[in-house]
Amino acid sequence: MTLHKNLRKIGDHALAAARKMVRLSSAKKNAILLAMAETLHNRRELIKSANAIDLEQAAAANLSAAMIDRLTLKEQTLAGIARGLGEVAALPDPVGKVTGMWRRPNGLLVGRMRIPLGVIGIIYESRPNVTVDSVALCLKAGNTVLLRGGSEAINSNVALAEILQDACEQVGLPASCVEIMNITDREAVREMSRCDQFLSLIIPRGGHDLIRAVTENATVPTLKHDRGMTQIYVDETCDVDMAVKVVHNSKVQRPGVCNAVENLFIHSGNAEAARAILKDLKEAGVELRGCLRTCSLVEGISRANDEDFDTEYLDLVLSVKLVDSLEEAIAEIGLHSSGLTECILTDNQENADRFLREVDSAAVYHNVATRFTDGGQFGLGAEIGIATGRLHARGPVALEGLTTYKWLVRGTGQVRP
Amino acid sequence: MTLHKNLRKIGDHALAAARKMVRLSSAKKNAILLAMAETLHNRRELIKSANAIDLEQAAAANLSAAMIDRLTLKEQTLAGIARGLGEVAALPDPVGKVTGMWRRPNGLLVGRMRIPLGVIGIIYESRPNVTVDSVALCLKAGNTVLLRGGSEAINSNVALAEILQDACEQVGLPASCVEIMNITDREAVREMSRCDQFLSLIIPRGGHDLIRAVTENATVPTLKHDRGMTQIYVDETCDVDMAVKVVHNSKVQRPGVCNAVENLFIHSGNAEAARAILKDLKEAGVELRGCLRTCSLVEGISRANDEDFDTEYLDLVLSVKLVDSLEEAIAEIGLHSSGLTECILTDNQENADRFLREVDSAAVYHNVATRFTDGGQFGLGAEIGIATGRLHARGPVALEGLTTYKWLVRGTGQVRP
Repeated sequence: MTLHKNLRKIGDHALAAARKMVRLSSAKKNAILLAMAETLHNRRELIKSANAIDLEQAAAANLSAAMIDRLTLKEQTLAGIARGLGEVAALPDPVGKVTGMWRRPNGLLVGRMRIPLGVIGIIYESRPNVTVDSVALCLKAGNTVLLRGGSEAINSNVALAEILQDACEQVGLPASCVEIMNITDREAVREMSRCDQFLSLIIPRGGHDLIRAVTENATVPTLKHDRGMTQIYVDETCDVDMAVKVVHNSKVQRPGVCNAVENLFIHSGNAEAARAILKDLKEAGVELRGCLRTCSLVEGISRANDEDFDTEYLDLVLSVKLVDSLEEAIAEIGLHSSGLTECILTDNQENADRFLREVDSAAVYHNVATRFTDGGQFGLGAEIGIATGRLHARGPVALEGLTTYKWLVRGTGQVRP
Repeated sequence: MTLHKNLRKIGDHALAAARKMVRLSSAKKNAILLAMAETLHNRRELIKSANAIDLEQAAAANLSAAMIDRLTLKEQTLAGIARGLGEVAALPDPVGKVTGMWRRPNGLLVGRMRIPLGVIGIIYESRPNVTVDSVALCLKAGNTVLLRGGSEAINSNVALAEILQDACEQVGLPASCVEIMNITDREAVREMSRCDQFLSLIIPRGGHDLIRAVTENATVPTLKHDRGMTQIYVDETCDVDMAVKVVHNSKVQRPGVCNAVENLFIHSGNAEAARAILKDLKEAGVELRGCLRTCSLVEGISRANDEDFDTEYLDLVLSVKLVDSLEEAIAEIGLHSSGLTECILTDNQENADRFLREVDSAAVYHNVATRFTDGGQFGLGAEIGIATGRLHARGPVALEGLTTYKWLVRGTGQVRP
């Protein structure tokens, strides 16, 4: 069977299962997730055997230690995955919520109801826990899933998916609620990205190359997570101690993630804050690359070049520039932004409001570390990812982002004149 | 200059203008629209001269009378366009609205604010009024616009766009709030559809071929309006007079539009309604194509073939089938649906609720003519179109559909532990 025919068949099954999912109560969906957690626990030896095959092949292929670490399913990793299923089961169900019902002059009642998206494609790389985490969130929101994991983890992923399928059948649902492709080449990714006849959305979870392979020729909408060029502006007046603490946390606490700060702009009139912040960062081992004025303000800072302000370091490195106004800061931020997270530190409420209004990014902050761009931190429960696009869902995406809406119209026989 | 370079330059201007638009108050945006209406009125002779050139070329090219009618800008058409600008100015502004601000245990305030999308591409065919209508809605929602109209109306479109640009400058905004391409071939459409570096959204307003040309290789998200296979199910019990009236209106009032009914399913236990509805439609000159049981129930109905139930007639023709249960009706509707509008006529509230919950279309109706799928009828004000996709916006799309949101986070120096 060709890839295309095989995909079509899998997709049709997932779509048929999605039509059943749309009818399920929250209780039933939670029962699936809890059955999955139980089955995972009962068959953990089987999963570990499958994982051992992947690990053997990884060792033979000389994969890096970091890669092998991400591949490994230890007892405690499995316990964490099962616990995650329970946590998603405990989240409120967005499906069926009716918002904004209003009455028209002719008596029609018009409103909107949250509904599942349908079949969601998840394309991911090495971590096998994504297999279960993604399925949990998609199913809770009433969708079915087509998984396509990386080749390094194929044995682990297939073993996990089969267990999830069995759990579906245990509670009387078709196994096709969870479909997995056993073809792991890039061609499969390209084909999936054009299956708009059955896929409502694709979520690529991985690096830039994977995202590009999905979006380049996609006809299916994608929820993608691109770069995070997070930026902070320190205004002319602010609580200096707070600013030191917030910038420190934004850069140092976990520098390798998309909500860690990469560019820092400081008002030239706030030399006190500039000196205190930069001194603190230097002591924390952060390499600073500054504009000419920054370098003359504080010693031991190397000169930044133009590219530095467009570089996502993901490391203990920070670009720093002095600016002369809020306007200049907003303009600079617009120039280098990846549209994800930007922050102002100020005690001037008017400037804060203007920054929040005018800076055009998925998440805009006032007086808080940038590290909070995260579904859990926002109070959304677990997240499926961070979206850097502008449509449908932006920033942290949780259950609501995995749904859409339909219009409800209730009448008493109204006709158009 | 190559098309690509030219497009890039236009796009950069439109994007720079969008960065200015995001700061405008509602009053200022309304002032633009009113200045546009006034300038259009003052320069109506200039518009009519440009339109005359298009009409001459249309006559020379032997375009159909219907096509020429759609091209023609009469005095009253222009007055209607200017009035439309005033109506959009009067609509509430969605931008800046903050929804669902909540407090996290650590004191963070997290909420969402409606913001403009950015630069919106409008690709349209012959009607020059689309030039103004689209600009009005996009600007009101705080966006700028890149227009690409059809070749038949190029002189009218350019004249209108220049007037809109002048009006922008009159109120102190850059002319680039409204950009228009003077290249009208299909290659330009394809290039535009890949300009995700500056376009946030493309709205193709035209036939299936145009939509296909846009979406086939698009990297820019599109808000497309595909087929409307509108369907009605008449349940086992219902108010027969109401059902006759609603089905009549749904088919006969304006058969050429996407919310006119194309398939009718009737419960086999409701022969009374079936006879009354079909008799009424026959008398109204509707050609009926029925299943075997329909044909034996009412005389003078031709047999429908399988394709008929997947045909968007856009004419006084209707496919009719008897079904034996609500489940069967929902399954049939799922099979033939284009996902736009479906309706149940019933006096059984439980069946109505189940239909509204389970039928997976952009608009689901109970006891009301399908002709109401329309932004104005829903109370949204003017609409930019009807979306048949599942993400971002579904069904009638008005101002809110031309915006997105960003997350606002206000703190007092919180850091991640």
